[in-house]
Amino acid sequence: VSITAPAGFSASGIACGIKASGAPDLALVVTSDGKPVPAAGVFTTNKAAAAPVQVSRAHLQETGGRASGVIINSGNANAATGAQGKRHAWGMAAAVAHELGIESKAILVCSTGLIGIPLQFEPIQSGIGELVGRLGSDIGNAQQAARAILTTDTRAKQSEFRDNGFIIGGMAKGAAMLEPSMATMLAVLTTDAVATSEMLHCALQEAVASSFNQLIIDGATSTNDTVLVFASGASGHKVDEASLVVGLKTVCTDLAYQMANDAEGGTKVARITVKGAMDSVEALAGARKVASSLLVKCSLNGQDPYWGRIVSELGSAGIDFDIDLVSVSYGGVRVCSEGSAAPHDAAKVQLHMSGHDIDIEADLGLGDGEASVLATDISHAYIDENVRTS
Amino acid sequence: VSITAPAGFSASGIACGIKASGAPDLALVVTSDGKPVPAAGVFTTNKAAAAPVQVSRAHLQETGGRASGVIINSGNANAATGAQGKRHAWGMAAAVAHELGIESKAILVCSTGLIGIPLQFEPIQSGIGELVGRLGSDIGNAQQAARAILTTDTRAKQSEFRDNGFIIGGMAKGAAMLEPSMATMLAVLTTDAVATSEMLHCALQEAVASSFNQLIIDGATSTNDTVLVFASGASGHKVDEASLVVGLKTVCTDLAYQMANDAEGGTKVARITVKGAMDSVEALAGARKVASSLLVKCSLNGQDPYWGRIVSELGSAGIDFDIDLVSVSYGGVRVCSEGSAAPHDAAKVQLHMSGHDIDIEADLGLGDGEASVLATDISHAYIDENVRTS
Repeated sequence: VSITAPAGFSASGIACGIKASGAPDLALVVTSDGKPVPAAGVFTTNKAAAAPVQVSRAHLQETGGRASGVIINSGNANAATGAQGKRHAWGMAAAVAHELGIESKAILVCSTGLIGIPLQFEPIQSGIGELVGRLGSDIGNAQQAARAILTTDTRAKQSEFRDNGFIIGGMAKGAAMLEPSMATMLAVLTTDAVATSEMLHCALQEAVASSFNQLIIDGATSTNDTVLVFASGASGHKVDEASLVVGLKTVCTDLAYQMANDAEGGTKVARITVKGAMDSVEALAGARKVASSLLVKCSLNGQDPYWGRIVSELGSAGIDFDIDLVSVSYGGVRVCSEGSAAPHDAAKVQLHMSGHDIDIEADLGLGDGEASVLATDISHAYIDENVRTS
Repeated sequence: VSITAPAGFSASGIACGIKASGAPDLALVVTSDGKPVPAAGVFTTNKAAAAPVQVSRAHLQETGGRASGVIINSGNANAATGAQGKRHAWGMAAAVAHELGIESKAILVCSTGLIGIPLQFEPIQSGIGELVGRLGSDIGNAQQAARAILTTDTRAKQSEFRDNGFIIGGMAKGAAMLEPSMATMLAVLTTDAVATSEMLHCALQEAVASSFNQLIIDGATSTNDTVLVFASGASGHKVDEASLVVGLKTVCTDLAYQMANDAEGGTKVARITVKGAMDSVEALAGARKVASSLLVKCSLNGQDPYWGRIVSELGSAGIDFDIDLVSVSYGGVRVCSEGSAAPHDAAKVQLHMSGHDIDIEADLGLGDGEASVLATDISHAYIDENVRTS
C-alpha cells in the first residue's frame, strides 16, 4: 500500500529543519533511474496559486507532460511570497535535479503549510543530499515520504490499486475542514502501467472530478492544491483509458475518504446525497451547500438529526426546489416527507447518528439528478487547531 | 428608542406558552386605531419560505401594500410544516384581526425558531386576548414586544431615527453566525412619516440592500427572514424618498450591527472591506467570501492577523485577482503588500486584534470597486449553542 508498490519508483522523506518541531518535512518521489516518464497534474484554481504550483505547471508544459518526480516540503506553503518565493520553488527543483544529474524541468514541486511566510531555503538546500541518499523502493521509504508531507494530519494517507497487469500507488495529505477547504490537499500517484501523458492527463482529470473534487474540494481550493500522477511503464502493461480511470478513481476515492476521516477536530464523516434534482449539476450544488453549512456541521457533532437545516440549505442553494416534494432520510430512515416531519423510528435514527459514518439523503422529487459529497462535523478541537498559527 | 416612538403605533409582548421555558414568545405591533396604513416588506429568497412568509406576502399583495400590523411568535419557525402550517399562519392573522375587529388581510405574520416542528396553535389562540389587551404606546410596551421575538439572542435590539419632521423606530432579532446565515433575521420598522406604499417599498429595498443584506445576510437567507415597515402618517410630515431612505438605512444599519454584536458565541465584530476590485459587485463577492470563511473566523477568535487566509479566500472568490497587486491591512496597519509579507509594527496590529471591533481591509489594486461586510468570529460557544436543538 504505497507509492513505491508500482515498479520503477523510489521515495524518501527526511526532517530538514523547516518545521521547528523537528518533524519530517521534506519528501521526494522519483523514477528509480531518474529518467522522465509520462506525467500529469491537476492544480488549484485559486488565483493566488503558490509558487510551487506555478513552477510545476510550467515544467509539465515545457516538457509536454514528462517528469521524473516531485519534491515536496511541508511546514511552509511558499504562497504569497512574491518573486523570491518563485526563485525558491524553482531552486528546489534545480537542487534535486542537480543531485540526480538530470534537467530541472523534470522535477515538479509541491509545498504545504502556512501562507505568506518567506520560505527558508537553506534547510532545504542542505537536506537535498540526504534526501536523495535515502531514496529507496521499500515500503519503509514510501512511508517516510508519506509522513514528511503531513501538516496538521494525524495519520499518513496511502492507498493502492492492483489490476490484472498494473498497479497504482498513492499518498496524500490534507486534514482541514473539507468545505470550504482552505487547507492544502496534495496527492501523488504512481503507476507502472504504460500510458501516454495525454491519457494520464484525461484519466486524472476524470478521477479527480469524481473523487477529490466531487467528494471533497470546494471551488474554494487552497493556494497549493495539487494532484500528480507518474507512469513508469515498468509493468509493460499497456493500459486502456477506462481501466486507468477506474484505478485512479479507486485510489483517489480512498485517499479522499482518509482525508475526511482525519479532518481537524472531526468526529464524523457524513455522506450527503442529493437525488431527484433537475440534473446532476444542481444535485452537486445542493449537496455542497448542505455539506458546507456550519449549522449542519454542528448538528452532526451533536448527533442531532435536525433535517430542518438540510431543507433550509437546499432551499437557498440556488437550485430548483419545491418544499412540498422534498424528503430527507438519515441512515435510510425517512424523517421528512413532502416537506414536513414524517413519523419515524427515532431510536433507529439516533443509533445511526451515534455512529462514525453518517448517511444523509435528500430527495428533491423533481428529476434524475444525483450527487454525493463527503462532509465532516465541527468541534471545539477544530477551532482550537485554527485559532492561532503560531 | 423603540417601535412606539413614532406616533400612531402600539405594541405588546407576552409569554403564551410556545417556549417550554416560559420566556416571552408572542408579540404584536399595530396601528393604535387598528386602521391599515401604507406598509412594505422584504422577504427571504429561500425557496423553502416558511408559512408566515407566504401569508405576509399574500396579504400585502392583496391589499396593495396596506396593513395594520404584524403578529410575531418565537420558539417555532412554522417552516417545513406543510398545509397545516399555512392554516396556522393564516389563523394567527385571523385571530388578531378578529380581536381587533378588522380584516384578516390587514395583519402580517412572522415566526422564528426551529424548522420542521408542527406549530402548536392552541397557546397562540389562547394568548391573543391578553396580547391585544396589553397593547400600549409606552416604551415598556415596545420593550415587551422586542423581547418576545428573541430566540437565542441575549439582548433585545431596538433603534430609532429622528429627523426634523418624522421618526422611525425599529426592533429586530437575529443572533446566529452571520454568513452563512441560517438563523432567522426579523425586523419591524415603524414611522410616523406620511408615505405611499410604493415609496415605502422602494426605500425599504434600498435600505435593506445596504444594511442587512450588504452587511449581514447571505444569499443563503433563512426560511423566515422578514423586514417590515409601516407608516402611520401621524406626524403629518410628507417625507421625500431620499430622506426616508436615509432614515431607514440608519435604523437598519444600527440593528444589523446589534445583531452582529450579539452573534451566538461571538467575541468580535469584524468589518471586512475589499477595495480596488474591478467593480462593487466583485468587491462584495470578495468581502463575503472572506467573511464566511471558517478559517478567517477562527483567526479572529484567536486574535491572529493571519492575512494568508484573507488572500487565499480572495484568490478563490471567483473575482478578478492578481496576487502581485494585493495589500492587506489590519486596523489600518499594512501587513501584506504586493502579495507578500510587509514589514510592520506587530505590536500595534496585536493591540488592534485584541479589541472587540476589528477592521480588515484588502486592496486588490485593480479598479474602483469597494464593499464592506460585517463578520463575527467563531468560538466553542457557537458550537455548543448549535449542536443540539433539544
